[in-house]
Amino acid sequence: MNTPYERLIRFADVDGAGFVYFSNYLSMCHEAYEASLAAAGMELRTFFGEHRTLIPVAKCQAQYLGPLQSGNRMRIEFTRTSTGPDSFTLNYRVINLSAGDKLVAIAVTEHVAIDLQTLERKPFPVVFTRWLEEGGS
Amino acid sequence: MNTPYERLIRFADVDGAGFVYFSNYLSMCHEAYEASLAAAGMELRTFFGEHRTLIPVAKCQAQYLGPLQSGNRMRIEFTRTSTGPDSFTLNYRVINLSAGDKLVAIAVTEHVAIDLQTLERKPFPVVFTRWLEEGGS
Amino acid sequence: MNTPYERLIRFADVDGAGFVYFSNYLSMCHEAYEASLAAAGMELRTFFGEHRTLIPVAKCQAQYLGPLQSGNRMRIEFTRTSTGPDSFTLNYRVINLSAGDKLVAIAVTEHVAIDLQTLERKPFPVVFTRWLEEGGS
Amino acid sequence: MNTPYERLIRFADVDGAGFVYFSNYLSMCHEAYEASLAAAGMELRTFFGEHRTLIPVAKCQAQYLGPLQSGNRMRIEFTRTSTGPDSFTLNYRVINLSAGDKLVAIAVTEHVAIDLQTLERKPFPVVFTRWLEEGGS
Repeated sequence: MNTPYERLIRFADVDGAGFVYFSNYLSMCHEAYEASLAAAGMELRTFFGEHRTLIPVAKCQAQYLGPLQSGNRMRIEFTRTSTGPDSFTLNYRVINLSAGDKLVAIAVTEHVAIDLQTLERKPFPVVFTRWLEEGGS
Repeated sequence: MNTPYERLIRFADVDGAGFVYFSNYLSMCHEAYEASLAAAGMELRTFFGEHRTLIPVAKCQAQYLGPLQSGNRMRIEFTRTSTGPDSFTLNYRVINLSAGDKLVAIAVTEHVAIDLQTLERKPFPVVFTRWLEEGGS
Repeated sequence: MNTPYERLIRFADVDGAGFVYFSNYLSMCHEAYEASLAAAGMELRTFFGEHRTLIPVAKCQAQYLGPLQSGNRMRIEFTRTSTGPDSFTLNYRVINLSAGDKLVAIAVTEHVAIDLQTLERKPFPVVFTRWLEEGGS
Repeated sequence: MNTPYERLIRFADVDGAGFVYFSNYLSMCHEAYEASLAAAGMELRTFFGEHRTLIPVAKCQAQYLGPLQSGNRMRIEFTRTSTGPDSFTLNYRVINLSAGDKLVAIAVTEHVAIDLQTLERKPFPVVFTRWLEEGGS
């Protein structure tokens, strides 16, 4: 398990209806992923230089279950699943802490490792695999 | 069929790797949807006041097939499918016009109509249903 | 003085050059302002309903002094200056904690209180004035 | 003079108050600048590789004069002023075409050319200077 990621929903996160804009949920999930990498001493950008590796999102999806508004405090939890030497999946739960810990969205991102130059698939750097395994249940 | 939506990929659309940030593809798809509504004389915000109706995204997904960088010109095409009196699905194709019209992403958004106050499901306003039917194939 | 606002620079914050996109500095300053309001139990949205008051930014400016990249940890400090019954100014300093606490930007936002319906200037709600005074030096 | 830049204000452009978020005006001004460069066959990213040159914003400011909401159509006009061999200033006017061509914001961005590696100031590439001069009045 990861340390949950928490933050305030801001004025810029919501759209013209006053609720978090649908694609911003996915950005916030990616924030939680980056925060977890940072806690393990890693950062996506450094993989470019040190390992010539990009780790883009190959697929994503989200399902919206309840409202989330500016001023609400939210938490994101996620689990990591290795799906091969060059791919993994993150499953996220977005929780509205200002509304009785209601689950307001679930999301999934699938990631792959590719070469910075050729954009061909390649195995993850070892340090990354270690982070991935620590999060396994 | 809709009029395709085209625009330049901008410096702010891309992330630290130089490619369009994964959730921005979904925002751009929503841009194409809003442009189509506007061409039909509609705007999401006006439904609030006139029809007490919100039409949020209930689910979304995207799959990434190729690179899209700042300075590239892209086109988004989409088809509309009514899935009930209060729901519809849009299927998008994102094409990189600066790379031989390569298909770089596909995406889906599922929308529902809900009441502005109760957030309960309700049928679409008639003007909206008309837009939906025009896009059917 | 305010509690400084700190967070990680994320992959989505930077642009095609790998540095934080210029207007995102201003968004991050606004984040720090919203975090300070939240710490005082306030939220911009609630002023609409309870006080029929909007508190928009009337002017802003920023000056960029050094680089800030994804993975960097940053801190924002700001001071508050009342400039009348319906206006105030915030002066921000953005510091790169990952580069020897280097000052990487300064920014200013000027805010006014206006009526939700008429958009005419009006005095701040009392609770807001209290927050403003607490931050005075 | 430049070809004016026009587009629809989108649901994602506005904030919790229903108006365009203050820093998004500056992003939209930058869009207009990028569109003008693109019309001249240039793109900011290509300067990195071909000329080892970054052209970041060194200062910016904006003043807000009226509302701009989702569904509104807006136009941005700007003038270019060379301020030295390695700097220039753009002055923008943001106009709400859906509200009697009302001027809703003015903005300024000051840009400099710097070396990709050293981040030291350096003269603009010749092609860029040509674009700059064409826009002079």
